[in-house]
Amino acid sequence: MASQKPAYQQAAARIQPPESALYEAARRHLDNLTKPPGSLGRLEDLAAQLYAVGGGKTPMAVDPARIYTIAGDHGVASPDGPGVSPFPQDVTRQMVMNFLQGGAGVNAIAGSVGAQHRVVDAGCLGGPFPEHPNLIQRRVADGTANFLEGPAMSLEQCEAALDLGVELANEAAAEGVRTLMTGEMGIGNTTPSTALYCAYHGLDPVRMTGPGAGLDANGVSRKAQVVRQALEKHADVVASQNPVAILAALGGYEIAALAGLIIGGAANGQLTVVDGFISTAALCAAARIAPDVRFFVMVAHASAEPGHRGAVESLGLEPLLHLGMRLGEGTGAALALPLYRAAAAVFEQMATFDSAGVSRS
Amino acid sequence: MASQKPAYQQAAARIQPPESALYEAARRHLDNLTKPPGSLGRLEDLAAQLYAVGGGKTPMAVDPARIYTIAGDHGVASPDGPGVSPFPQDVTRQMVMNFLQGGAGVNAIAGSVGAQHRVVDAGCLGGPFPEHPNLIQRRVADGTANFLEGPAMSLEQCEAALDLGVELANEAAAEGVRTLMTGEMGIGNTTPSTALYCAYHGLDPVRMTGPGAGLDANGVSRKAQVVRQALEKHADVVASQNPVAILAALGGYEIAALAGLIIGGAANGQLTVVDGFISTAALCAAARIAPDVRFFVMVAHASAEPGHRGAVESLGLEPLLHLGMRLGEGTGAALALPLYRAAAAVFEQMATFDSAGVSRS
Repeated sequence: MASQKPAYQQAAARIQPPESALYEAARRHLDNLTKPPGSLGRLEDLAAQLYAVGGGKTPMAVDPARIYTIAGDHGVASPDGPGVSPFPQDVTRQMVMNFLQGGAGVNAIAGSVGAQHRVVDAGCLGGPFPEHPNLIQRRVADGTANFLEGPAMSLEQCEAALDLGVELANEAAAEGVRTLMTGEMGIGNTTPSTALYCAYHGLDPVRMTGPGAGLDANGVSRKAQVVRQALEKHADVVASQNPVAILAALGGYEIAALAGLIIGGAANGQLTVVDGFISTAALCAAARIAPDVRFFVMVAHASAEPGHRGAVESLGLEPLLHLGMRLGEGTGAALALPLYRAAAAVFEQMATFDSAGVSRS
Repeated sequence: MASQKPAYQQAAARIQPPESALYEAARRHLDNLTKPPGSLGRLEDLAAQLYAVGGGKTPMAVDPARIYTIAGDHGVASPDGPGVSPFPQDVTRQMVMNFLQGGAGVNAIAGSVGAQHRVVDAGCLGGPFPEHPNLIQRRVADGTANFLEGPAMSLEQCEAALDLGVELANEAAAEGVRTLMTGEMGIGNTTPSTALYCAYHGLDPVRMTGPGAGLDANGVSRKAQVVRQALEKHADVVASQNPVAILAALGGYEIAALAGLIIGGAANGQLTVVDGFISTAALCAAARIAPDVRFFVMVAHASAEPGHRGAVESLGLEPLLHLGMRLGEGTGAALALPLYRAAAAVFEQMATFDSAGVSRS
C-alpha cells in the first residue's frame, strides 16, 4: 500500500476559500436593511463571514457550537525546569478533572452561552483519566520534552497531534457541529506559545513575553530568557521556516492539536472561533501550514497577555472582544458566540427599506 | 394638598449606593475560584457589580431583561431646519412602526439574546400610533422645539419626560424585570446629544461632533456649527450648570425619558445597560441629577461616533464592547447582556481551589 499523507496535509489541501462574490452579496443585502449602511460595525463583518463561509446558504447556522478544551503538559514546566509558571505542573491534570466536574470557568461560560464542551487529553502527564462522556483521551505522549534540551516533540509526534485536531473537526462535522471554539489547558504553555510567535513572526522575546498565569517581573524576565534560549537552541529549525518543524521544536501537544482543529475546520467549511494567547499561537501555526484558514477563523478576544495584540496584528486579524481576559480554556471564544448569533439574526430577520416602508437617506 | 416633588426627584433621593463591603466580598469570592486571580478581566468587574447592586443576594438575577427603545422628534431636524441628518424626519415614525413589526436591528438582536423589548413614544411627531402590545404611548409633546430658536422643551415638559422614564423603571420593577437596557430613535438626535455633552462636560463642539447616521464632512462641519450656535443661544443656562434646565434647553424627549429610566432603575436597585452615543448623553444628564446612578450602570459599547469615547471617559466609565457600532435603538446594550449572564454564571457555578482539589500558585 502506498504511504498516505497525514490527515492535516490532506485537510490543508481541501480548504477552499469562500468566493469573493459571496462577501459582496452579503454586503449588498446588509446595506439594504433598515439601518444606516455599516452602522452595525463588526457585527456586519461577522454576518458577511458567516454567509460566505456557509456558501451563501440561509438560514446561516452558528449552532450547534462546540468548545474543545485541549490539554497537554510541557517539559519546560517540569519541577526541575527553569520555572515558567506560578502554578505547579500537577494543575494541568487537576484542571482537566475540574473541567469534567463542571467547576471551571469554561464550564460556567459554555453553559451560559449554550455551547457544547469537550475536553481532550492530547498529551498530559500522569496516565489515563477516568472515563467521562465529555472527555476524549487520545494522548500522543506523556507531555513534551523540555525544549531547552531538544525538540519538544518529534516530527511524528507533532504530526500525530495535528492529525488528532483534524479528526476532532471531522467528528464534530459528522455530528452536525457548525462552529468550533478553541480552548486549552497546560501549565507553562504561554512559554512555548511565546516561542512560536517569535519563531513564526520574527518577534522579540522580551516584547512578547508576559506574566501568563501570574508571574512577577523577575519571573517574566526569566521566562523571556527561557524563550530566547529555546530560539537559540533551535535556531536552525527557526531559520528553515518549516512550520511543522518549528511547531515540533517549540510547541506542545495541545497547541498542535488546536492547529489541526483549525485546519480541519476550515477544510470542512466550519467557522472556528479562536480563544486567546495560546490558541492564537496555534492559529499562527495553522496559518503557516494552510494560509487560507484565515477566512474561516475569528480571534475572539484580545488577551491581557501583552504580546497578544501584536501577534494578532501579524496575522492581519483584529480581535473581537477587549475584556482584559487571560484565563484560556476557551472562555473568550465562548463569549464571541452570542455576537455571531446576533449577526446571523440581523442578516436574516431585519426588514429592508422597501419592505418596511422606511425612507432612505 | 401640598405640591409633590416630581417622580424623578423622589427617585433620585431614594438611590442607595451599594455597600463597599459587598464589592470586597465579591472580589474575595472571585479570587477563590479555580482561575488565576483577575484572569477573567472585566467579566469579574461585571460579577462584582451584579453582586453589589443585588445587595449580595445569590443567585444573582440578570433576567428578565428589557430594552426600552424610546422615540422622539427634534425641532432642529425639521425640514426647514439647518439639516443635521441625512435621513428625513419621517423616519422616526417609520422606524417606530418597523420596531413594532419586528424588522429593525434591535428586534433581531433582542430576539437573539433573549431580551424583552418595549417601544415608547415619548415625543414623536404625527399623532398617535396604532395600538400594539409592545408600544407604550405617553407622548409628552409633538417633538421638541428647534433649540436654535428657544429651549427644546419647557422645564415642565422636560420634567414630565424624566418622570415618564421613572414610571417605566417602576413598571418594569413591578413586573420583575432585573436588567434595563436603554435604546432610542429620533432623527437628528446626535445633535442634541452632542450639545448636551458639550454643556455638561465643557467639551468642544468641533471635537465632539460626528457623522451620526451618515453625514459627509460638510454636513459634520455644519452640524458642529449648529451645536455651537445652540450652546451660545443657551449660554446662560449652560453657565448655570442646572442639569434639568440644560436638558430642557438642549435635549429631547427620548433623552430625558432615558435619563429618568436610569434614575428610576438606580432607585429600584436595577442594573441599567446604557447603549451608545445618545443613551450616554442621557446618562450624563442622569449622573448630573443623581451622581450615584453610576453604581447601577454600564456603558455597553464604544460608539463609532468619534466623540463618544471622550464623553464616556468624562463620566469615569469604560465601555464594555468595541464593535464600531453606531445604530442606536438599544442594539449595543442588548449585546452586553450575554456578558452579564456569563459573569453571573462564573460567580455562582465555578468551583473553588479547595472544592476542586486544585493547587494554588
